[in-house]
Amino acid sequence: MITVLKSSATKEQRDHLISWLEGQGLQVHVSEGKEYTILGLVGDTGHIDVELLESLAIVESVKRVSEPFKKVNRKFHPLDTVVTVGGASVGGGSFAVIAGPRAVESREQITAVAAAVKDAGASLLRGSAFRPRTSPYDLQVIHAEGLEYLLEAKKATGLPIVVELADMKDFDLLAEVDVVQVGSRNMQNYEMLRALGHTDKPILLRRGLAGSINDLLMSAEYLLAGGNANVILCERGIRTFETYTKNTLDLSAVPVLKQLTHLPVIVDPSHATGRADLVPSMALAAAACGADGLMIEVHNDPLHAQCDGAQSLTPPQFAQLMERVRRVREAVQS
Amino acid sequence: MITVLKSSATKEQRDHLISWLEGQGLQVHVSEGKEYTILGLVGDTGHIDVELLESLAIVESVKRVSEPFKKVNRKFHPLDTVVTVGGASVGGGSFAVIAGPRAVESREQITAVAAAVKDAGASLLRGSAFRPRTSPYDLQVIHAEGLEYLLEAKKATGLPIVVELADMKDFDLLAEVDVVQVGSRNMQNYEMLRALGHTDKPILLRRGLAGSINDLLMSAEYLLAGGNANVILCERGIRTFETYTKNTLDLSAVPVLKQLTHLPVIVDPSHATGRADLVPSMALAAAACGADGLMIEVHNDPLHAQCDGAQSLTPPQFAQLMERVRRVREAVQS
Amino acid sequence: MITVLKSSATKEQRDHLISWLEGQGLQVHVSEGKEYTILGLVGDTGHIDVELLESLAIVESVKRVSEPFKKVNRKFHPLDTVVTVGGASVGGGSFAVIAGPRAVESREQITAVAAAVKDAGASLLRGSAFRPRTSPYDLQVIHAEGLEYLLEAKKATGLPIVVELADMKDFDLLAEVDVVQVGSRNMQNYEMLRALGHTDKPILLRRGLAGSINDLLMSAEYLLAGGNANVILCERGIRTFETYTKNTLDLSAVPVLKQLTHLPVIVDPSHATGRADLVPSMALAAAACGADGLMIEVHNDPLHAQCDGAQSLTPPQFAQLMERVRRVREAVQS
Amino acid sequence: MITVLKSSATKEQRDHLISWLEGQGLQVHVSEGKEYTILGLVGDTGHIDVELLESLAIVESVKRVSEPFKKVNRKFHPLDTVVTVGGASVGGGSFAVIAGPRAVESREQITAVAAAVKDAGASLLRGSAFRPRTSPYDLQVIHAEGLEYLLEAKKATGLPIVVELADMKDFDLLAEVDVVQVGSRNMQNYEMLRALGHTDKPILLRRGLAGSINDLLMSAEYLLAGGNANVILCERGIRTFETYTKNTLDLSAVPVLKQLTHLPVIVDPSHATGRADLVPSMALAAAACGADGLMIEVHNDPLHAQCDGAQSLTPPQFAQLMERVRRVREAVQS
Repeated sequence: MITVLKSSATKEQRDHLISWLEGQGLQVHVSEGKEYTILGLVGDTGHIDVELLESLAIVESVKRVSEPFKKVNRKFHPLDTVVTVGGASVGGGSFAVIAGPRAVESREQITAVAAAVKDAGASLLRGSAFRPRTSPYDLQVIHAEGLEYLLEAKKATGLPIVVELADMKDFDLLAEVDVVQVGSRNMQNYEMLRALGHTDKPILLRRGLAGSINDLLMSAEYLLAGGNANVILCERGIRTFETYTKNTLDLSAVPVLKQLTHLPVIVDPSHATGRADLVPSMALAAAACGADGLMIEVHNDPLHAQCDGAQSLTPPQFAQLMERVRRVREAVQS
Repeated sequence: MITVLKSSATKEQRDHLISWLEGQGLQVHVSEGKEYTILGLVGDTGHIDVELLESLAIVESVKRVSEPFKKVNRKFHPLDTVVTVGGASVGGGSFAVIAGPRAVESREQITAVAAAVKDAGASLLRGSAFRPRTSPYDLQVIHAEGLEYLLEAKKATGLPIVVELADMKDFDLLAEVDVVQVGSRNMQNYEMLRALGHTDKPILLRRGLAGSINDLLMSAEYLLAGGNANVILCERGIRTFETYTKNTLDLSAVPVLKQLTHLPVIVDPSHATGRADLVPSMALAAAACGADGLMIEVHNDPLHAQCDGAQSLTPPQFAQLMERVRRVREAVQS
Repeated sequence: MITVLKSSATKEQRDHLISWLEGQGLQVHVSEGKEYTILGLVGDTGHIDVELLESLAIVESVKRVSEPFKKVNRKFHPLDTVVTVGGASVGGGSFAVIAGPRAVESREQITAVAAAVKDAGASLLRGSAFRPRTSPYDLQVIHAEGLEYLLEAKKATGLPIVVELADMKDFDLLAEVDVVQVGSRNMQNYEMLRALGHTDKPILLRRGLAGSINDLLMSAEYLLAGGNANVILCERGIRTFETYTKNTLDLSAVPVLKQLTHLPVIVDPSHATGRADLVPSMALAAAACGADGLMIEVHNDPLHAQCDGAQSLTPPQFAQLMERVRRVREAVQS
Repeated sequence: MITVLKSSATKEQRDHLISWLEGQGLQVHVSEGKEYTILGLVGDTGHIDVELLESLAIVESVKRVSEPFKKVNRKFHPLDTVVTVGGASVGGGSFAVIAGPRAVESREQITAVAAAVKDAGASLLRGSAFRPRTSPYDLQVIHAEGLEYLLEAKKATGLPIVVELADMKDFDLLAEVDVVQVGSRNMQNYEMLRALGHTDKPILLRRGLAGSINDLLMSAEYLLAGGNANVILCERGIRTFETYTKNTLDLSAVPVLKQLTHLPVIVDPSHATGRADLVPSMALAAAACGADGLMIEVHNDPLHAQCDGAQSLTPPQFAQLMERVRRVREAVQS
């Protein structure tokens, strides 16, 4: 860590700071310049509060030379993590597609969608049995049966299932769920992350709307720090000024994350764009830029069927997309 | 609610949609144009899923004419809500200042800071006994004694106290706490909001980094929908591309919120800017633009004292600021 | 266009507004609701000042039903525009790659790079002979010879050349340049756009850092309104809070633009990410999601050669990328 | 400047880089660490291309220790710049208000508004005689008479006038204009800035929608580098995800700019918020946080008068605001 001191710092202030830093177990190398003095801090700086340091009046700026995340860092763990769940593998060169409806609406719906996405080549089934909604008055699609139907669909198809956890108190309900999803709104719910870090349940961690790449990795670090290394990261769009799409899918995050971490990285084009007509293009782009998989909404409900088109893909659209994704994967790997 | 249909919609598709909408209990007024058909939806549209509607292939766009939030809406409750806590009032023309250290570090520290901020005119005392940190390896300032010391400081000074709740399971620990703070990272933790909505504990709800004004109001609606109307909103900066300040304090949100809702609105310039030297200017600006109060970090710890300056204000800086804030309040009210 | 009036509007105010709108040549359809009155405006609303309308005290909101852009709109011109320049075509199913150095540094450099990118399959050569820099003290790479060397390279290779125009007064200097680039910082320099609209020079219009998709299309509309339909759009990243990449490449803009407009859309992964190691991934993603081409920095200068790696690709890296892009294009088209 | 090299850099690569840096006239101090090598660069680093340096494969990161701007920097010019124009002063403790209509519509309008804002205490008159519009089809309020009427209003009231320059070729038309405004869209039009830097015309430089504080200062540096120190900076909102206001007014930029530069800083709450009802609150906030002045839209046209309210303030609203601003100024200065 490098700390640049202002030229206005007195010798006494500087010595106070240096002795405080040494008290934190660090070695301090001082380089004096005409305008600035630079302190090079060597040792375990992981527990140093950068914000506190930056806030000191004599400090011009602080710069971490090494990343604050350790266990998720590819530098220290160069090999890809492969998260194995049921018969499916995520990471390490395979390509995993998680598909399913926005919300589980009925036994018939989830059964039909599950069979269809399995046929098309999906590796996992998703279903939002507990999805929180922005308004307390929005249709609340939280029926206890949702989970039950999902488990039936799992049994029928053999597909492992992914379900979002809205609150740690519901964790036990998800005993038979294969992957627990931490939603964007909970990406920095550190209590939840800490608790999940002490389980061995595979976790799908979605990037928050205002979450930087660094924030996402620090959140994953919470899970790994607790001992749970079965973590899949998911890019699903960030909040920007552009309004044609619901969020702005940050695909550059895929190669950046693949460099910085050994964890698998998947992309959700459905939530990122909010428009079914953009899902195929962005799914193909995600496959082309090195993602380890996709998460895609597929539906089968009457309203959509009648009106022919929706935010989610229909099973035939999904099957066609899977075929195109396969070709793109082959093209980039050959 | 207005729904614009594409000219490509067939009569059959249109009739399907209209009959579905009528099935939801709405009256549908159809205005046919050359290029578009407009459906005016009358009735209780609060439970209509706008995203679903927008996602239909025949729908060009959907526009809510009335706001989706009801109970927080000033239109239906024109009078200011006043949150009364201990001897302090927030909202309704009074001006409340919540002050205290970044984290409770020792009995001596919190006792000294509490006495100082009370003398300077603060109405409430804050202290982060449970503050979550971005890194699992950052200094974790979570000591059980933190809360105990805060309660002692409350008793000694008579100041009501504000403490952040990181997880609903800790709620019972906060029985003697006067105001429970919901942090930015939990602004859309709907499970927590729903649970807090069923208590009568005063809540300080902080805007999330990617939270729009509408999102903040919908989160407050969760609390009021449950029956808890003791809610204080707090603007504390949003995430933008500007990096000179930690976040970008959105002061325009203050007059906007004061128009849209009857709930009190306070401003936290300490977290928004991340720099003590900017806190006074932004506190004065907040007072000038109609905020109902401020939330300010005040510290008293040795490192800062030695180095003369920090992210937090010192007690003398805080006392001086309070005097200036008072003058600005008088100026805007006269 | 739909205008929603507040319920507080008096009949007199409403009538004033309606008669003003009719005076603008519009038909006004009034639908009265309990809470709101909706005015449907039919006719040529293109010249109505939406901001002015929205600013009226009796107006709740204004919504354009049809897009404000006409000549760039695919609705009215469904066929792809193909910009033909020299032997190269951009748009209409072909895939054009524009490559070249960040700045023309010497005759040797540009000659060598031009030959190399041609061999690898580039269709056009770029070179920043006039690139403006953020600091007045930055190395100013503006040598009159830059353009001369580029023209020599054009002659030697047959590649048409793309050069940025920083100021309309330099336009005549670019007589032999094949495509004039309007940089991000000039995307909304309407005087320049208006002037270029009256020429028949092919234009490469780059999206601004804060430019929405709508803004970009309105800027293109300036060019087409003047009569110049030889316009290529370029996505090159927008400004967001994420700092790992220089900007955030908004690839969703590609399929969105392809739907909204008939103009060709290319992607510049070099400037968007600012990092050579991310360029291949994002170039492949751009090819996969339907872009009509790419714009890529390729260099050949001693410093980079010595240090082995840079923001730009080396000629061998570029050649390898071209091969992979070709395979992805085949995969998505088959 | 500090350059951190990766541990993977070979000795040869490092020596190449160091000798290149020394060739640029810099002294290089090398500090070797276990994981990283740090190069401290001393000398005139203003002409070093940071992006180029960062792009080298062996470079981990580059950090400027000193700001890249010199002439606008308060460190080197601690005293406030006062821009004197006609009888008005901007900066140095005075408070200047620039007021006037959105666009000059008629002789009667501008004459009436000019008289009214003068009476209320405005120091300068603004009028958009050349304002560029987002759409080529929007009402183009560019009449040659606009400027003429403004000059008449100047003569009648004695108020100096501020007019936006859309293109350098129009500069001579503005010979009698007192302050030339560079709009947000031209903030990084370096050709225009460079040309204006060689005049002695006072310049009002508005922050761009994606312009960081650093960008704004670098643009001002262009003006001062050319010799023109009569520069007024204007904060007018940045582009964020929030849509209740047209832009997000970044008032923290005011105290930040006042620290970093000696140039006067004013605030435009009219364009930032886009809503007249928010202008008073934000004007008061700007006065409270240390701005050197305001820029406010005041109108007097029939449509607005009829409909009672608009984006601009009416003369009586403006007069009332001026009185409140005066009281806030007194409060913060006493």
